[in-house]
Amino acid sequence: MIGLETLKSLLQERYLKLRSSKMVAVLKVQDQLISSIRDFLRKNGFVEILAPIIGPVTDPGIRGAKQVSFSYYGVEFKVMSSMILYKQMIIASIPKVFSVSPNIRLEPLETIKTKRHLTEFRQVDIEQAFASYNDVMRLAEEMLCSVLKEIKTKCQVELEILERTLKMPAKPFRKYTYEEAVEIVNSLGFHVKYGEELNWKAEEALSKIHNEPFWIVDYPLTARGFYYLEHPDNPGILRDFDLLYPEGYGEAISGGERETHYSRVMERIQRGGEDPAKYGWYLKMLKDGIPPSAGFGIGVERLTRYVCGLENIWDAVPFPKIAGIVSP
Amino acid sequence: MIGLETLKSLLQERYLKLRSSKMVAVLKVQDQLISSIRDFLRKNGFVEILAPIIGPVTDPGIRGAKQVSFSYYGVEFKVMSSMILYKQMIIASIPKVFSVSPNIRLEPLETIKTKRHLTEFRQVDIEQAFASYNDVMRLAEEMLCSVLKEIKTKCQVELEILERTLKMPAKPFRKYTYEEAVEIVNSLGFHVKYGEELNWKAEEALSKIHNEPFWIVDYPLTARGFYYLEHPDNPGILRDFDLLYPEGYGEAISGGERETHYSRVMERIQRGGEDPAKYGWYLKMLKDGIPPSAGFGIGVERLTRYVCGLENIWDAVPFPKIAGIVSP
Repeated sequence: MIGLETLKSLLQERYLKLRSSKMVAVLKVQDQLISSIRDFLRKNGFVEILAPIIGPVTDPGIRGAKQVSFSYYGVEFKVMSSMILYKQMIIASIPKVFSVSPNIRLEPLETIKTKRHLTEFRQVDIEQAFASYNDVMRLAEEMLCSVLKEIKTKCQVELEILERTLKMPAKPFRKYTYEEAVEIVNSLGFHVKYGEELNWKAEEALSKIHNEPFWIVDYPLTARGFYYLEHPDNPGILRDFDLLYPEGYGEAISGGERETHYSRVMERIQRGGEDPAKYGWYLKMLKDGIPPSAGFGIGVERLTRYVCGLENIWDAVPFPKIAGIVSP
Repeated sequence: MIGLETLKSLLQERYLKLRSSKMVAVLKVQDQLISSIRDFLRKNGFVEILAPIIGPVTDPGIRGAKQVSFSYYGVEFKVMSSMILYKQMIIASIPKVFSVSPNIRLEPLETIKTKRHLTEFRQVDIEQAFASYNDVMRLAEEMLCSVLKEIKTKCQVELEILERTLKMPAKPFRKYTYEEAVEIVNSLGFHVKYGEELNWKAEEALSKIHNEPFWIVDYPLTARGFYYLEHPDNPGILRDFDLLYPEGYGEAISGGERETHYSRVMERIQRGGEDPAKYGWYLKMLKDGIPPSAGFGIGVERLTRYVCGLENIWDAVPFPKIAGIVSP
């Protein structure tokens, strides 16, 4: 394990590290990855839109990280931690949309050690009107397989430099319910209580005993944001999912079907102990009505880390930002 | 002219406005625009990299706008107002790079009236190692003509909805020196003093008397950021440029050759009344040495406004942010 002081000086002298042939290979793979995702989505009828960078409202469901707040001409604004609520605005105009969205989350200091947390990252954020969560899981599987195939062909030289052999996963990916996932990680020695989010150590352990990506579906309502739809015939359970990479790389994708009814969203916000006034334009929009939809976000740097087989996430981006470390 | 209260309520109810056929057409043209730029640049050997969102250092040369600052684990960070200094870091690794970069600039309240200022916008940021400013101006002309041609073919339906007839400009574009541009705008009744930036009203007037895009080159050192190269045989004059759209649409592109010598940059920073300590990693990098380069940024929303023939910039982006107005 690399020491904190070494890591600090490595990150501060980023301009030297960036010149290594390995980093150049990573950046070229990353360019091709995003380009292949764009090609896949546009071929499937998705339109790319410009993601918001700041706004009065952002995603509250960010697992213990803090948002960046500042005064926007006297009113509190946030730097986006996720554009989920904005995707729900746009699908009434364009039913299949995606963005490469900027996200800032000031993670707890202990995430320095996880090798997979950045405070600044991008997601390919995808949303589709009138789709079910099964529809978008199928879309994600097709996208990931198509992109991995293209990388194998177009980035042979770079993968050789990185000494990475990419395995092609078989479709459909294996699917666990949240309940099954909790049972497995607890059998591995963890103590995850039903109703809690799986913590990153449990996710990593679960990821390590797989050699292909796999789904965890149907999380309990208590573990996730207010914008996920509850199963109509299974109260307390959401129609949502995570995709985990194999080999210990952990979380790849989060997504699900959306709750769009004003009164149910209000109730969920209040039950979560939040002030509905924070969600001004969003609640007004729900009151007027929006189409149902499903979608997900796939982290660009984590995908790069997995595809390139990198130990540390900070090598999967040109200008990495880690909790508590000042770097370019 | 639209009233301020009307504008506020229009922007706050963005989810309704976005459903109009005109806005959908704009968003589809925008998707194609960015996609065509990416195709052009990748075909010309450019690699796309992920732009920084926040950092300890950003561009100081932002014409009277304020930056967003916040505490990053106790240290002052900014939301990027331009990634120029980061492009200079990356070209030592990848000699031809571009990004679609996020930019936040809290503009003065009077910019509500300009119809061309947003506080949140994106630039296609391009940089090429060992290129002259003439090289990248040629690149910009080719890029713009190629993209306009593609839009005319691929977005016929949308341009009809928008009632926009796009004229194809002839290459090379007309070129004025800054000195000539000052003479022309002063003959139009403005009072721009030699050495000052052309203000937006003067730029708009100059833009109105043209029907094709045109360059203004060789700005005086006093009007621009410290990172532009001084003409070796013409002290006080920079090797830089702006491109202006015709028909009153104003500024399109800003760019130039970079000053890379540590001591000269130090002198320029100090002459500008700034504290060099603010530029920590950047100055250290220059001391160690970086390749010379040239590059530019082209504003995505302003390009969209020009191509779609929109009166107001806030219709050229899904979630517009205007100085002093709280909107999604």
